[in-house]
Amino acid sequence: MNLLTKYKSVRLASEQMVEPLHIEDYVPQAATFASPPKWNLGHTTWFFEEFILKPHSQDYKVFDESYSFLFNSYYNTVGERVTRANRGSLSRPLVSEVMGYRKHVDKAIQQFLQNSTLTKDIEDIFIVGINHEQQHQELFFTDLKYNFSVNPTFPAYNNKAFCEDEESETMAWLAIEKGIYDIGHQGDGFCYDNELGAHQVLLQDFEISNKLITNGEYLEFLKDGGYNKFEFWHDEALFWLKDKNISHPMYWLQKDGKWFQYTLAGLRLLQDKHILTHLSYYEAAAFAQWKGHRLPTEFEWEAACHKFDWGKRWEWTESAYSPYPNYKKPNGAIGEYNGKFMVNQKVLRGGSVVTPQGHSRKTYRNFFHPHIAYQFNGIRLVK
Amino acid sequence: MNLLTKYKSVRLASEQMVEPLHIEDYVPQAATFASPPKWNLGHTTWFFEEFILKPHSQDYKVFDESYSFLFNSYYNTVGERVTRANRGSLSRPLVSEVMGYRKHVDKAIQQFLQNSTLTKDIEDIFIVGINHEQQHQELFFTDLKYNFSVNPTFPAYNNKAFCEDEESETMAWLAIEKGIYDIGHQGDGFCYDNELGAHQVLLQDFEISNKLITNGEYLEFLKDGGYNKFEFWHDEALFWLKDKNISHPMYWLQKDGKWFQYTLAGLRLLQDKHILTHLSYYEAAAFAQWKGHRLPTEFEWEAACHKFDWGKRWEWTESAYSPYPNYKKPNGAIGEYNGKFMVNQKVLRGGSVVTPQGHSRKTYRNFFHPHIAYQFNGIRLVK
Amino acid sequence: MNLLTKYKSVRLASEQMVEPLHIEDYVPQAATFASPPKWNLGHTTWFFEEFILKPHSQDYKVFDESYSFLFNSYYNTVGERVTRANRGSLSRPLVSEVMGYRKHVDKAIQQFLQNSTLTKDIEDIFIVGINHEQQHQELFFTDLKYNFSVNPTFPAYNNKAFCEDEESETMAWLAIEKGIYDIGHQGDGFCYDNELGAHQVLLQDFEISNKLITNGEYLEFLKDGGYNKFEFWHDEALFWLKDKNISHPMYWLQKDGKWFQYTLAGLRLLQDKHILTHLSYYEAAAFAQWKGHRLPTEFEWEAACHKFDWGKRWEWTESAYSPYPNYKKPNGAIGEYNGKFMVNQKVLRGGSVVTPQGHSRKTYRNFFHPHIAYQFNGIRLVK
Amino acid sequence: MNLLTKYKSVRLASEQMVEPLHIEDYVPQAATFASPPKWNLGHTTWFFEEFILKPHSQDYKVFDESYSFLFNSYYNTVGERVTRANRGSLSRPLVSEVMGYRKHVDKAIQQFLQNSTLTKDIEDIFIVGINHEQQHQELFFTDLKYNFSVNPTFPAYNNKAFCEDEESETMAWLAIEKGIYDIGHQGDGFCYDNELGAHQVLLQDFEISNKLITNGEYLEFLKDGGYNKFEFWHDEALFWLKDKNISHPMYWLQKDGKWFQYTLAGLRLLQDKHILTHLSYYEAAAFAQWKGHRLPTEFEWEAACHKFDWGKRWEWTESAYSPYPNYKKPNGAIGEYNGKFMVNQKVLRGGSVVTPQGHSRKTYRNFFHPHIAYQFNGIRLVK
Repeated sequence: MNLLTKYKSVRLASEQMVEPLHIEDYVPQAATFASPPKWNLGHTTWFFEEFILKPHSQDYKVFDESYSFLFNSYYNTVGERVTRANRGSLSRPLVSEVMGYRKHVDKAIQQFLQNSTLTKDIEDIFIVGINHEQQHQELFFTDLKYNFSVNPTFPAYNNKAFCEDEESETMAWLAIEKGIYDIGHQGDGFCYDNELGAHQVLLQDFEISNKLITNGEYLEFLKDGGYNKFEFWHDEALFWLKDKNISHPMYWLQKDGKWFQYTLAGLRLLQDKHILTHLSYYEAAAFAQWKGHRLPTEFEWEAACHKFDWGKRWEWTESAYSPYPNYKKPNGAIGEYNGKFMVNQKVLRGGSVVTPQGHSRKTYRNFFHPHIAYQFNGIRLVK
Repeated sequence: MNLLTKYKSVRLASEQMVEPLHIEDYVPQAATFASPPKWNLGHTTWFFEEFILKPHSQDYKVFDESYSFLFNSYYNTVGERVTRANRGSLSRPLVSEVMGYRKHVDKAIQQFLQNSTLTKDIEDIFIVGINHEQQHQELFFTDLKYNFSVNPTFPAYNNKAFCEDEESETMAWLAIEKGIYDIGHQGDGFCYDNELGAHQVLLQDFEISNKLITNGEYLEFLKDGGYNKFEFWHDEALFWLKDKNISHPMYWLQKDGKWFQYTLAGLRLLQDKHILTHLSYYEAAAFAQWKGHRLPTEFEWEAACHKFDWGKRWEWTESAYSPYPNYKKPNGAIGEYNGKFMVNQKVLRGGSVVTPQGHSRKTYRNFFHPHIAYQFNGIRLVK
Repeated sequence: MNLLTKYKSVRLASEQMVEPLHIEDYVPQAATFASPPKWNLGHTTWFFEEFILKPHSQDYKVFDESYSFLFNSYYNTVGERVTRANRGSLSRPLVSEVMGYRKHVDKAIQQFLQNSTLTKDIEDIFIVGINHEQQHQELFFTDLKYNFSVNPTFPAYNNKAFCEDEESETMAWLAIEKGIYDIGHQGDGFCYDNELGAHQVLLQDFEISNKLITNGEYLEFLKDGGYNKFEFWHDEALFWLKDKNISHPMYWLQKDGKWFQYTLAGLRLLQDKHILTHLSYYEAAAFAQWKGHRLPTEFEWEAACHKFDWGKRWEWTESAYSPYPNYKKPNGAIGEYNGKFMVNQKVLRGGSVVTPQGHSRKTYRNFFHPHIAYQFNGIRLVK
Repeated sequence: MNLLTKYKSVRLASEQMVEPLHIEDYVPQAATFASPPKWNLGHTTWFFEEFILKPHSQDYKVFDESYSFLFNSYYNTVGERVTRANRGSLSRPLVSEVMGYRKHVDKAIQQFLQNSTLTKDIEDIFIVGINHEQQHQELFFTDLKYNFSVNPTFPAYNNKAFCEDEESETMAWLAIEKGIYDIGHQGDGFCYDNELGAHQVLLQDFEISNKLITNGEYLEFLKDGGYNKFEFWHDEALFWLKDKNISHPMYWLQKDGKWFQYTLAGLRLLQDKHILTHLSYYEAAAFAQWKGHRLPTEFEWEAACHKFDWGKRWEWTESAYSPYPNYKKPNGAIGEYNGKFMVNQKVLRGGSVVTPQGHSRKTYRNFFHPHIAYQFNGIRLVK
């Protein structure tokens, strides 16, 4: 697929994604981390304007000078930005203006691609822009789910509940032998800077589960009083449980003795056989300890993942998000993409039901702080 | 004017008020105190549904069960409610649904008024409902102004800047003699419970200014370093100034050495002769001390107000908001209207450019915490 | 009593007061408001050094330059100071050094008084210094009680429980007639600036209780679920109850179904007949509403106080702490004593079991924020 | 050295350590992490009482029942405890009582050791208790330094400034070859559970510095505006810098254009050639990036440490604190020692000028949150 086709296809996907929304749904931001749909649509567009069109397309006419400021995220390199927590306070630009912005940039990109021969550097950043938009497609779903979830009427995005993938596999332990394994991205395809620096690691013998934990398995932990047994929890997890008053996974709700979960299709009865989701690392690690097992490291996961199906949940690993040996932070704004987050976060591997097809790969390193549960993440055990 | 005519006229005013808005503008809440337009429109309607239709109109059919919860404000008597700070997180109900709710209730009220003979009690609460909606019309403007103000593009509500009332009067001191004065509401017209308990107070001699302080007069205070002279400020005002990093009135902005103020018509150059507005009590009191004067008590204001024009700004008084002698909190939800706020707030008297005509009166007691500046409030001095 | 005798007597009282303490007890500050004994002893000394000796005693040699900074409290006029919350973090100066400081200043004051003829201004500030030290004697007890109270071993200051004054009076309502009453300090004796500006107020008929509320009477309120009945509480009181998780008066403790209270003599069984103490204004006002009565205004209290015994509790009034008509803030540091606190506080009248004898008077205006309960305050009702 | 000799020697060291203190110095806790000396002395004693004497010494008589609660730290297994932040609010028990407690326990331990044959389990926990006390000896110095540092008079512990170790070595890079290295504790000597699970890791080629960074080298970073160059900092480090207003290492102070540092010998002029100390991980990592180098991983450090001198500073590594393969959390209270902290912390290797002699070793894994700078930590670079 050539670049323009790829670009168009990803851009179209973003617009199809918002079709079920009403204008009002584009605006709120119920927590700092949950950006409004309007912002996600503008920010992904801003990336192409800021890093491709402004520096490289000579006759490009900026759509609106204020957007450079309004749709910047964490890119210190690029100048001032609206405080992240304030994105939901802005009724303007209107949805129609953001859509106009998208059309304006799409047209300019199309002309640029047709009239220019891209240098390797520009092509690289262009591909980052496409992958960046895919990441925000995933965030669109997780952010929207959160923003809807605070509404006591539990609105539905559509009638398809993304959590409701039945788990049919029978549990089995897959054995991996002690040895030296290749880690990190190799070859020509796209990857992020944090996957580079391919290297070898020495792994000990271990066994990894072929399947993800289900709601039913986690309910056993709840019923055993797991949230009150301090011996299974990290010290700061105990503080987190108490401070946030947490006693069950995010989006779970108990009514009249029955467990429900909020899904993008609205509130649904919790199904034992479905794959568990929306866990923090703290909960994942406590569950693993309670089971007498542990979470895999990211290296174990990468070495073993050819042996099992993955891609329904981002899977928490025991590994802290750190640079690979010989990791080099790229220059300029792209250098802000990954390296600066390499402290106090945990690596997740795999992908989720809302990850765009083809976006993830076996060397992909997702990362979140250990208390984050609003992603479609899950648990795979190792022993 | 009969009740139905009055009702229709006030309801219509609310709807005319939102005409300049886009759908997106109905949603955000940039601070806990600044409710979204959507909520103001729903909440005023909820008042009539909850206190008139539900208890008194036998065949009334509730529009949506969830609205009882969504549009409740502080009425503990009426049951659960959405946390105030979360109003801006709710994209649903849609604006069209809220408008449908208004129509539904309006129709039911019209039928109810036409088919029933109101008892005195019901008529009283009905009139409270009308005045309540007028209060929220004022809040609509002050809340919207705040919500727009956090947007770096400074959107305009319309082309009429509500602050731009020129101040033409020449300063004069009006003398009031020591004596016994009647305070509080007397007669048949509507008033709130907090104005009742008419009584006499003994006032000393004082002189009160015929006019409100202008931007130019306040700028003198700024230029004299007034915000850094601790001797003019209350102790907790100093903490507030430091904590919130305040060095000028709300909505003032300095660019390239010039002062601007954000108005509902957008950002405008500050005009010296215009009436000052958006001051906290702390600032009003510090300015008065700097001038060598003081603010009036609410009793002084009420005794003197027939001698000057008022109604452009809510005027800060020195009086704490306390019950009048023999004040009786009404029973039920109406009892939550005023009495429970009678601590740690200051009384404001008068009215403002966004107060609906005929809503205020000389005995009207508005009240806010001393740090609140988002109302169109102002300063009148006494010596 | 001449000035020097008065001075010596008050200074001696401060030193007798700390006799039961161990060195360790002089250091901690368990909350920002609860200064360590060491600080109270140094600060009252600093007052005489800073306002009498430094400016007026030519040959005075400063004891330690750093004390000017360490023992300043809120006097912005006098320069920098240690953040109030940090007083308990300072192990130095040592107790022996603070005692040395006291001796040094006492000696210098004695010489100064013997060798100088005081101007009226110096005499005035000298008398303020004596009253200031008496205020800190009261604070010594209330602060120490708080600092001890957080210790799970409930240490005792001595064997005399200051709360254990039996209440023997039979309840009676004392009628006061509508009329004009003199308010504020008159005559030659000492008073604070906030009592000046004697003036007349017009009071309506009212009846005031001859006695203070007892533990037993308040327990009735508790047993009736008073802390859960929102209709008796101010709106911000409800927030305070929830935020601080409050369900009974300060220093009360329930063990095995029995109520205890922490006193300066240690933990004691709560006695129904003893006078209630350690209430916030919020609780006092809610209790009064529950009883169907109200708190007096400070003017009512002053007009009626010759008819009842007072002095065991500081009594909450309904009055906000505001300036009297014609109140003038004194110049310089003394001007910081009262005026700057005249917002968001409530007046208390009377005196308490730990107020030094002769320190209070019928025009004395004590004041605290409405949530403060660590003073020995109480409730007297009006109807 | 037999157990009793070892015990006596470590216990004596704790008591020699506090000799320069005044009674007042034992009390304050200027931040949650900086326990008072009194608490450190009691807590280390409590360990022996709680884990040796109470369960294993039949005729042991508890010194004071309340100490079980007062001197517990984070041991959930053992029951309730005083909130950590409140340790400085407790004037009781007195210093003399804590010293009495030490004597009481020492005597009982001596009898116990002389009269019993220790099982392996008891001996193990006994040795943990000795090492635990040594850890608290180190904390005594770092906590005291912090507690003294908030005093504007900068008290000195003694005349020996622990930071003033001159750095004489000439910089050299030490090359380590790619290969498989043994990691973790082996052999019979004591180690903590987190060092067990000896295993092999595969390391790439790297070069490590023979020396620690000096004040002078770090000053170059400051002079180059390093604290304002976002590209060298982690994202959350930028937030930390801004939130805490940090622009230089802890305990540094600039006066009249000169840099000073607070030491345990008081305020001293900063010496360029001395080894830098009191850095957070954030600062260490930013400095390394600015230099174009990086920090070692804990595995690199362990593989290389035989080639350089270490022990003056705890050295920040890039490694997150995670369990080694096959790490098993011990049962009971000892299980709370390490495992529950294995998230969001960074490993430090080495030892410091205040680490008791013989306490550290090459496999020792110290750990702190990345913002912690009050330990004597430092920087060693890798390329």
